Amino acid sequence: MKLLEQRILQEGQVRPGNVLKVDCFLNHQLDVDLLDEIGAEFHRIFGADGINKILTIEASGIAIACMTARHFDVPVVFAKKAKSKNIDGDVFTSTVHSYTYGRDYDITLAKKFLGPEDKVLILDDFLANGKAMKGLLDICEQSGCTVGGIGICIEKGFQPGGAELREAGYKLASLAIVDSMSDDGLTFRAQ
Amino acid sequence: MKLLEQRILQEGQVRPGNVLKVDCFLNHQLDVDLLDEIGAEFHRIFGADGINKILTIEASGIAIACMTARHFDVPVVFAKKAKSKNIDGDVFTSTVHSYTYGRDYDITLAKKFLGPEDKVLILDDFLANGKAMKGLLDICEQSGCTVGGIGICIEKGFQPGGAELREAGYKLASLAIVDSMSDDGLTFRAQ
Repeated sequence: MKLLEQRILQEGQVRPGNVLKVDCFLNHQLDVDLLDEIGAEFHRIFGADGINKILTIEASGIAIACMTARHFDVPVVFAKKAKSKNIDGDVFTSTVHSYTYGRDYDITLAKKFLGPEDKVLILDDFLANGKAMKGLLDICEQSGCTVGGIGICIEKGFQPGGAELREAGYKLASLAIVDSMSDDGLTFRAQ
Repeated sequence: MKLLEQRILQEGQVRPGNVLKVDCFLNHQLDVDLLDEIGAEFHRIFGADGINKILTIEASGIAIACMTARHFDVPVVFAKKAKSKNIDGDVFTSTVHSYTYGRDYDITLAKKFLGPEDKVLILDDFLANGKAMKGLLDICEQSGCTVGGIGICIEKGFQPGGAELREAGYKLASLAIVDSMSDDGLTFRAQ
């Protein structure tokens, strides 16, 4: 998606440890017009796939999921990272290792929101090692739902998450794939 | 807002400890059509107030903020609850006590996203004791921005947050104010 690649080139910042900061428009400050274009693009890719629910994980995924759900006219459900007093009853749980935060955490989703009748599109802002995505896929498997597709804004193509998901047979669409990055700049994979 | 009150009556669940669960449509599963109507209502109330940015806090606030920002055509910025390796440089910080999670936590916002040139609308899903809101107002004060208004989906009118903000002179709009709740039902404040 050229529009997203341009914004990454204009405003993204490469930091030590393979960090690509896009906090000006994607995950701290949010450019809602860009998110709407991203949602339209995901609908172009997955719109004919019978999706009836969008699944994501707090916090950055929520904005992308909501702005995409408008185009599909389906609800969003998001996995939570912290255990709240307000989540009770039966939940699906999976454990995720976060490189960003340097720790393991549990993600939870109330069982009533996902089941065998659902065909979900899973969305997230980044895909790198794919740990959070594996947690979401684990929850999908527990629920018996069908994974209709996986949509990612920015994939770090030099980390293994994307390749593993493609090998596993998922319909994965990453709107921008960064194949290399350094202080000198970024290279995107031609798509 | 009658539409929101109706959904609360239909799908909200009262739980011990003054908990009102609205996870079917507002903060776990998200009804994007309803959020769009909520955004339109906030625009009706605050649309003439010169708002140039919407401020919220992760995670539940993000969906409401994004769907409202579309109506204002302004960016969203959200305060983060956990310290990420990816947030560097100067940040505004404030400490918040959460009754829901039973602990104190820091919220942070990168300084580059809020300053004296901004007039913000602060949005959140719930207002009860107002602790998270006070943290956001503290960050606004640190930044020198102007608070143009505060928009809340559901205020618990029997807890002190709303009254304190009105006494302090803020333009506060709560789309539904629950004045009492029990196993027998809910009472909304006439507005």
